[in-house]
Amino acid sequence: MKVTPWEVEGKVDYDKLIKEFGTQKIDEKLLDRIEKNSKELHMFLRRKFYFSHRDLNLVLEDYDKGKGFFLYTGRKPSGPLHIGHLTPMIFTKWLQDVYGVNLYIEITDDEKFVFDRNTDWKQIDKWAEDNIKDIAALGFDPDKTFIFKDREYIKHVYPLILNVARRVTFSTTKAVFGFGPDSNIGQMFYPAYQTIPTMFEKKRCLIPCAIDQDPYWRIQRDVAESVGYKKTAAIHSRFLPPLQGVAGKMSASMADTAIWLTDDPKTVAKKVNKYAFSGGQATIEEHKKKGGNPDIDVSFQWLSILFEPDDKKLDKIEEDYRSGALLTGELKAILIEKLNKFLEEHRKKREKVNLEKFMKTGKLAQKMWETYYE
Amino acid sequence: MKVTPWEVEGKVDYDKLIKEFGTQKIDEKLLDRIEKNSKELHMFLRRKFYFSHRDLNLVLEDYDKGKGFFLYTGRKPSGPLHIGHLTPMIFTKWLQDVYGVNLYIEITDDEKFVFDRNTDWKQIDKWAEDNIKDIAALGFDPDKTFIFKDREYIKHVYPLILNVARRVTFSTTKAVFGFGPDSNIGQMFYPAYQTIPTMFEKKRCLIPCAIDQDPYWRIQRDVAESVGYKKTAAIHSRFLPPLQGVAGKMSASMADTAIWLTDDPKTVAKKVNKYAFSGGQATIEEHKKKGGNPDIDVSFQWLSILFEPDDKKLDKIEEDYRSGALLTGELKAILIEKLNKFLEEHRKKREKVNLEKFMKTGKLAQKMWETYYE
Repeated sequence: MKVTPWEVEGKVDYDKLIKEFGTQKIDEKLLDRIEKNSKELHMFLRRKFYFSHRDLNLVLEDYDKGKGFFLYTGRKPSGPLHIGHLTPMIFTKWLQDVYGVNLYIEITDDEKFVFDRNTDWKQIDKWAEDNIKDIAALGFDPDKTFIFKDREYIKHVYPLILNVARRVTFSTTKAVFGFGPDSNIGQMFYPAYQTIPTMFEKKRCLIPCAIDQDPYWRIQRDVAESVGYKKTAAIHSRFLPPLQGVAGKMSASMADTAIWLTDDPKTVAKKVNKYAFSGGQATIEEHKKKGGNPDIDVSFQWLSILFEPDDKKLDKIEEDYRSGALLTGELKAILIEKLNKFLEEHRKKREKVNLEKFMKTGKLAQKMWETYYE
Repeated sequence: MKVTPWEVEGKVDYDKLIKEFGTQKIDEKLLDRIEKNSKELHMFLRRKFYFSHRDLNLVLEDYDKGKGFFLYTGRKPSGPLHIGHLTPMIFTKWLQDVYGVNLYIEITDDEKFVFDRNTDWKQIDKWAEDNIKDIAALGFDPDKTFIFKDREYIKHVYPLILNVARRVTFSTTKAVFGFGPDSNIGQMFYPAYQTIPTMFEKKRCLIPCAIDQDPYWRIQRDVAESVGYKKTAAIHSRFLPPLQGVAGKMSASMADTAIWLTDDPKTVAKKVNKYAFSGGQATIEEHKKKGGNPDIDVSFQWLSILFEPDDKKLDKIEEDYRSGALLTGELKAILIEKLNKFLEEHRKKREKVNLEKFMKTGKLAQKMWETYYE
């Protein structure tokens, strides 16, 4: 197993990750508190897709005391989005709805630029616009959400970036990110910018992200208090498994491991039927006799994580698959239908998105364009 | 001898420096060309105070061919200015007058901030304003000169900074600047910004500076062409010697080694009389008999470099001092009078400076605030 911000390899042992990264498990007590605030827990929480955290208890305390908190997530505009990219955004949207808090979404055009010497701003801007549309389509509150590109907002934050940067040594970035003699100075500086949205308010920040992104926030937690802000909290998810199997995570560089938001119904059906790793048996007869294994079946996992919110329906699917009553082809058909319905709705919402609201004219966006951070 | 951008120690062997740094000597041919353009060579050139260069021949060729060039200098706002700080600015002003070219003056507030963890923006801004007033008082063309603070202009240049930064490795900054594991990531990123004004125009840039600043421009010369600009040229001066002796250079941290622009006439007289290293003899009798040595006499050196532009008058002073006819006290009195006259005039001009012109409303400044660099 190898889990870094750039690489996830092998079957992931999530309990081991919690120990290695020094994070906390989301326990029943925490889930109860969130349930009180939300009436019903999101399926990501009920089904332990979000399983780990840092300081989530403090976030909920702050909320209960009326101090509030805010949310931060981001996207490196390096290509089109797949379903896996959308999951933290979907959860973030739910958190915003439940807690009514501000959300900052950083589009890290500068990160893409310094980590990929072959790209240019035109290409990056194309993906940035594409990605922002997909993100905004999820329905965030346009008066409580600010989406910005790093290089457009730089003047508002450069002094604060430097205040973080002067506290972070080369040794630290080497230890956290593995930078070495051949790393360029743009890459080495970039982590400072990534901490900044956690300081957009004096309240505590909560970052929903996959567990592999945790190292990024260690630097923030080292430095934040010395520049007058709170250590950020985080809530960590597992990985949505790639089609080919439950190990690793979806790879943007391997198109067929993922369902892209632009995949049409036929492509979706073909990909799921051809690639989605099956927990079923080799023949229908054998399957009916021995039953399938939903734990390693990617179609079942996707339904469980993302596409079948109804617990009873999911239990029934699991039961039938385990018993052999539900065939692999039938299970895949359920997923294909749900996936295509989701994608169709998503693309409709995407058409109606008003980017200006999130980036310039919404209440929070307006305020942010008048604010300068030191 | 030790010469780095941060430290100058010992008696400087300038011919050796030219070899070590790999620069070119300013030869008679080059001086003739400049003389043709200027009618009369500046005393800094006549007296070999500016002695070394990179690509100055190409700058003059570009000028002759009508391609033009531009000037760039800068200041880290870390405290008040002394006479030594002003010398490259005085020469830059002369070059602007002779060639009628644009000049960019970078105030590196970010550099100060990341290299000094104990300072804050308020302190830096105070010195920035103070320094800019002193610089602007030299009389640059307000429509051809743009003075800017790094953190105010950042949005206009951040994409280009990143384009430089992604081509500069940690190894390179280590070799050029001596950065190590404890250097902070702000320090490591900063050299990228310092290259940017050399790319404000597609023409060739000429940087007048003391020879110890040469390493800064090596990175620029490595990278410039790959991002679509010209390698910068430079013209290098010796150091104005500190009062205490002709070795080393004036130190901002040792107040009595320098004459500050705010020193009043009494202070100037006291400092020169008390500290200015003398090439004279121990007693008046001995001096009259053996004569003094102007080569190691700081008062004479200051007159020669900065305060006695008339070659004949200087020759006479040198002759009289060498023969013993001119006593050390008399030599010092000449310098004191010149110095105080210079300072008085400078402070008068300083009062009348219109900073807005250079920073916002002059022709070049206006254009720069409408320009974005990728």
